[in-house]
Amino acid sequence: MGGAVFEAAELGRKISREEFDAMAPALRTDLLDLQQQLRTADFPVIVIFGGVDGAGKNETANLLNEWMDPRWMVTRAYGRPSDEEADRPEYWRFWRDLPPKGKIGMFLSSWYHRPLLDRVHEEISVAEMDELLDRIVHFEKTLADEGALIVKFWMHLSEKAQKRRLKKLEDDPLTAWQVTATDWQHWKMYGKFTAAAERMIMHTSKGHAHWHLVEGADPRYRSAVVLNTLKDAIVRHFEERGAAQKVAAELKRPAPARKAEKPKALLAQPSILSSLDMTRSLDGDDYNRQLQELRGSLSLLHRKAKERGMSTVLVFEGWDAAGKGGTIRRMTNALNARDCQVIPIAAPTEEERAQHYLWRFWRHLSRAGRVTIFDRSWYGRVLVERVEGFCSEAAWRRAYGEINDFEEQIVEAGHVLCKFWLHITAEEQLARFSQRGEIEYKKWKLTDEDWRNREKWDLYEAAVNDMVEKTSTSIAPWTLVEANSKAWARVKALRTVCDALEAALRKRKTGTPKG
Amino acid sequence: MGGAVFEAAELGRKISREEFDAMAPALRTDLLDLQQQLRTADFPVIVIFGGVDGAGKNETANLLNEWMDPRWMVTRAYGRPSDEEADRPEYWRFWRDLPPKGKIGMFLSSWYHRPLLDRVHEEISVAEMDELLDRIVHFEKTLADEGALIVKFWMHLSEKAQKRRLKKLEDDPLTAWQVTATDWQHWKMYGKFTAAAERMIMHTSKGHAHWHLVEGADPRYRSAVVLNTLKDAIVRHFEERGAAQKVAAELKRPAPARKAEKPKALLAQPSILSSLDMTRSLDGDDYNRQLQELRGSLSLLHRKAKERGMSTVLVFEGWDAAGKGGTIRRMTNALNARDCQVIPIAAPTEEERAQHYLWRFWRHLSRAGRVTIFDRSWYGRVLVERVEGFCSEAAWRRAYGEINDFEEQIVEAGHVLCKFWLHITAEEQLARFSQRGEIEYKKWKLTDEDWRNREKWDLYEAAVNDMVEKTSTSIAPWTLVEANSKAWARVKALRTVCDALEAALRKRKTGTPKG
Repeated sequence: MGGAVFEAAELGRKISREEFDAMAPALRTDLLDLQQQLRTADFPVIVIFGGVDGAGKNETANLLNEWMDPRWMVTRAYGRPSDEEADRPEYWRFWRDLPPKGKIGMFLSSWYHRPLLDRVHEEISVAEMDELLDRIVHFEKTLADEGALIVKFWMHLSEKAQKRRLKKLEDDPLTAWQVTATDWQHWKMYGKFTAAAERMIMHTSKGHAHWHLVEGADPRYRSAVVLNTLKDAIVRHFEERGAAQKVAAELKRPAPARKAEKPKALLAQPSILSSLDMTRSLDGDDYNRQLQELRGSLSLLHRKAKERGMSTVLVFEGWDAAGKGGTIRRMTNALNARDCQVIPIAAPTEEERAQHYLWRFWRHLSRAGRVTIFDRSWYGRVLVERVEGFCSEAAWRRAYGEINDFEEQIVEAGHVLCKFWLHITAEEQLARFSQRGEIEYKKWKLTDEDWRNREKWDLYEAAVNDMVEKTSTSIAPWTLVEANSKAWARVKALRTVCDALEAALRKRKTGTPKG
Repeated sequence: MGGAVFEAAELGRKISREEFDAMAPALRTDLLDLQQQLRTADFPVIVIFGGVDGAGKNETANLLNEWMDPRWMVTRAYGRPSDEEADRPEYWRFWRDLPPKGKIGMFLSSWYHRPLLDRVHEEISVAEMDELLDRIVHFEKTLADEGALIVKFWMHLSEKAQKRRLKKLEDDPLTAWQVTATDWQHWKMYGKFTAAAERMIMHTSKGHAHWHLVEGADPRYRSAVVLNTLKDAIVRHFEERGAAQKVAAELKRPAPARKAEKPKALLAQPSILSSLDMTRSLDGDDYNRQLQELRGSLSLLHRKAKERGMSTVLVFEGWDAAGKGGTIRRMTNALNARDCQVIPIAAPTEEERAQHYLWRFWRHLSRAGRVTIFDRSWYGRVLVERVEGFCSEAAWRRAYGEINDFEEQIVEAGHVLCKFWLHITAEEQLARFSQRGEIEYKKWKLTDEDWRNREKWDLYEAAVNDMVEKTSTSIAPWTLVEANSKAWARVKALRTVCDALEAALRKRKTGTPKG
């Protein structure tokens, strides 16, 4: 297991040779077409590959070089600075190699190399790494402000998969030379490497240049993802610059449409949600016993936390009828009502609409020692607002970084933060809706809106997967709760909160200073 | 003298009571009008006051409150956090107080307070301050991305002026209470305070929220500047959001035009250029003796620098016919031709046009031990490109920060950087143009373009003043050269380079590590 952000890239996604061969010709034609259109465009494309050794950075770059027209494409990789380079400011060599307008530049071990590896080898402190990352953000912003399209791929392998991959290369006499002592040395530092990489990704994923996380274990899968993502990014950039039509007209051919369907083989991949074991459940006796125990623990832990002035923030998100309300009640019953506040988030009030969308969540953060439970939350921005088009695409894409920043401040202030996604299957939701329709005292719970939302299940599911991928940070990870069984869901949520409180109390005791 | 950035706010600018009274009614009407239009606008206005004690932060905020409609305006100031506030993440209190859309929020001692004062009192390191500043940049970016207009004023007083101001308040029995022991304590830390403030201003002046430096010695002058700048900023923001016409139409009154003339009293103020003593000159004997001496020194110093692998970058900007070429030749004559490269910057080549505008300067940075002389430079972006409209307003406004970032990297790499603006008066230029027209072998130097540029003297002068104000940082200050006397100019430039080399060599000797 890597850091929390990387879980979404350890799902074992694969594409068969047949599937890949079926999608390849169209994809390749699209990319070549785009490359031709780029030639007269007024911006360069900068593609960056980073990631774990063996996750396919070089192979993917090679494939791109093979597929596309090399005349309009340059590839750069950087080792130790040459004498020439060491004599000048560090970024001199990167500036020199930037692609001009109309060309694609691919960078392997780019400006990200030094901050990451120096941190892994503890040659620089976290604060020093942050300063180097800050320079990267400014550099990329400077390029993006002038129109450059920047697409960054982080190729990921789990620790196990990396080992398998290195072994496999070693065992084959034809590829054994590719595996160096350094590779194994890096593998031993896997934990350090992914921790530093996570920080790097979080700090340098900006609206103008965010990272795409790619599961790197299967060569065909990762190639398909990179090629598709690059294609989408170029098409979107043309659209945003309003240049697509113009260029297409000049070349007398139609601009590729962004909405063109994703290859089926990519749509059918397991996701973080689909990889949950939805058969998990708990029988009545077990449930009652564990519930009692956990509520006792929560009550006790909360009292200790309160004494130490430690606040708790719980976030509940989930499908309609997933059982958020019931789970929340199991929490509040264990707590003193004076110490606990449930904030139901519905449409914003007039006052709230006149403010930044995060304002209404900031205002509800409670004082030291209290528990604040958000029944739906700031994640509305990247769920309902995204799906229903209540905010622009630029706004919800920006929001991931804004939310991570917000949660970082909550955690830095010493609060305990748990985030839950209560997951049920579409079938289970239908069953619960029908039941609600039949039972008189539950009818009020079922609205037309619930049925409308249900029609957009796929869109919501894609939004949830993106949300978890981009906001499950090591300081504020998501807990995905298999909630087809209400008993299981309640117990898992309670246990997660207890564990988090216990860990925080232990940490506080050993004297880690607040903030 | 404060840090280099603050020189532009120590010019003794003043406005008489009559002048102020003459401009006040129109300005006040405009501001009230804008405030009315704001009420239905879809963005809030955030005004931040920072600066030296006694430079008029509070008085200016009070004036704004007095002039404008208090119903659509809130003022906030922050002391030590209350219990309520200390229990929550630091930014909770700032979020809570943000003005809603349509309102103006004025912040005194805002989110800038803690990073600045903690640094002045050395409670945090420079790296820690940078991290706090980074949070500020993200915070303001988050607000600006949703449309907020952020206007930041830094009110400046020179060390002497601050002392005078505090004395004056103390001497008057009616105002003596305003001066506290803390004020005098701060005054004693003036140097530290301005050094930290400069770093803060450089790091937090972004395209979406840059600082306006205001000379605070004269109450009428500083009020006029703040009120005018605020008005301009609001009008520009309406324009940029394309909302001005819409709102104006709803209110059935014309939108105030941005191009409305600045009050004459503000236009007539001394500037950094106008405050130069243009009578400075050097007679022939003195000139020859000093020139010989300095060229000897330069030659010697350069050899030492070369041994230590230290590079030098010289930037020459100035009016047409100000004598850049002659001054540069006096430098190169003293140096070994192999070690020295003059880069004349004219219109970019086709290859250069296909890149980011900074690319062509990065590429010319020379190796360790060399001297690179730029005859015109990256400052073209904020001079000729601004004045001639070759780039958008957003682009040249952004450029100040990009240039500071670029120069920071040059200096961090251990290079010595000197920037010269060769200044002549309009009369002197005319005389030189006429002379060129008459002397056969100098005719080629005079082009139609020179005459066209001359017609835009005022626009260029404004651009130069802005350039010096925004890019004269303590690590890369501008040297303004009074060049009506060519002898004086050459000697001053040579001496500046020698001094800079000597200082850098001394510093290197005492073992400050490179980079």
